[in-house]
Amino acid sequence: MNDQDKRAIRATAHVLADAARVETLRYFRGAAFALEDKGVGRFDPVTEADRSSERAMRAILAERRPDDGILGEEYGVSAGTSGLTWVLDPVDGTRAFMSGIPMWGVLIGVWDALGPIYGLIDQPYIGERFEGGFGVAEMVGPHGTRPLRTRQSPGIAQATMLSTFPEIGTSEEHAAFRRVADRVRLVRYGLDCYGYALLAAGQVDLVIEAGLQPYDVAAPIAVIEAAGGIVTDWQGGPAKDGGRLLAAADAAIHASALELLRG
Amino acid sequence: MNDQDKRAIRATAHVLADAARVETLRYFRGAAFALEDKGVGRFDPVTEADRSSERAMRAILAERRPDDGILGEEYGVSAGTSGLTWVLDPVDGTRAFMSGIPMWGVLIGVWDALGPIYGLIDQPYIGERFEGGFGVAEMVGPHGTRPLRTRQSPGIAQATMLSTFPEIGTSEEHAAFRRVADRVRLVRYGLDCYGYALLAAGQVDLVIEAGLQPYDVAAPIAVIEAAGGIVTDWQGGPAKDGGRLLAAADAAIHASALELLRG
Repeated sequence: MNDQDKRAIRATAHVLADAARVETLRYFRGAAFALEDKGVGRFDPVTEADRSSERAMRAILAERRPDDGILGEEYGVSAGTSGLTWVLDPVDGTRAFMSGIPMWGVLIGVWDALGPIYGLIDQPYIGERFEGGFGVAEMVGPHGTRPLRTRQSPGIAQATMLSTFPEIGTSEEHAAFRRVADRVRLVRYGLDCYGYALLAAGQVDLVIEAGLQPYDVAAPIAVIEAAGGIVTDWQGGPAKDGGRLLAAADAAIHASALELLRG
Repeated sequence: MNDQDKRAIRATAHVLADAARVETLRYFRGAAFALEDKGVGRFDPVTEADRSSERAMRAILAERRPDDGILGEEYGVSAGTSGLTWVLDPVDGTRAFMSGIPMWGVLIGVWDALGPIYGLIDQPYIGERFEGGFGVAEMVGPHGTRPLRTRQSPGIAQATMLSTFPEIGTSEEHAAFRRVADRVRLVRYGLDCYGYALLAAGQVDLVIEAGLQPYDVAAPIAVIEAAGGIVTDWQGGPAKDGGRLLAAADAAIHASALELLRG
């Protein structure tokens, strides 16, 4: 892929993220009024936001990238001919979204035959965008632009770890998770994709998740790898298909966490 | 207290919050670089942010409100003569702060002899400020100004509840907390003071906490009550001294949660 192709993909990703911001913010934190107006159960703001955001992104891709495939959380697979696939999660972190917590995000990834090559994690309410791939690793937020670089981890006993649920996965998965959680200094829950962004930004050491879908991980893998981090499954293999994920700030903390997960 | 006094207190609170923004943002998310430069354990950004933020606020109060008392998390009690006390938590949510998660806040409350009469919850990174008291209940954020009003709760089975720790309090407190947590639709963790702001903003139904200090609750009580919500301890009594807290969007959900907490 030449530089012009890479620039075109990046430009399209930003256009998608801009469109998703408009659609998701139309529904975020409006739920209270909708519930009062229409009665509980008749209107689900996060479902509307999800669909509206993915539809807007698909319309842009149909116009700008008609030969690429699409895999989206809401509307499934559209085959392409270029060998590239846009992997879209229009609202990752629906529980945060439902609760008014701005820790959800829009995930836009690009796959080739081997896996994720580019990714963007956007938090529309805060106005933060984390981008990685094609030699780029940077974030833009309310306080300016900053390079993304994972940190040199202080080691497992001093590590900060993030995960979405304290009650993660199956009982076997939960036990493996606890072996790591019990060894680190600090565990925080409820971050969804925002946790990957913080890892890429050098703020934390580990993100461990289970039960993921491909659209949950495509963009985060590209962003974290571009920032110098390591993402695998719980056996050290590729994580691009979802399932169990271990994302780490550096090789040493990755090895420590992997050993504990394996038991 | 006349309107001019109330305006003067509000104006001072905003000046304090502006100063605390500068001090806290000096340290937020800089931790990675500090750790690399200076070695683990030799520099604690959140402690520095806490102290620097409270010192800046105390300097402003010494100038503008010399007759008022101060109760601050970091520097304790300074007696006053006016009957008013400024209750300051310069960084509420230190674990979030340490992890780069923008769900911490600066708490600025004002007490008279009976309890909290005014409060402000500020999130410096996002640029959100939630204010309640003296007839005011509003938030200002990256997408404009909006009135604060708690929602009409859909009832316990449909409720969203927030709390800081899944492993809240003593074993007795944990059991009481679980009786509520097991009945609601959705529980989210890790919010600290941001949870109170979301309750006041009509996004969630309940916040339940234990082990609180007076400076954790002064501002939140004022903001939530100004927005139409109810804040008590777990027996339905005043919550202003800290300890166990139950904050609710309306009287019906408050009664439901109180009954479950009592067991």
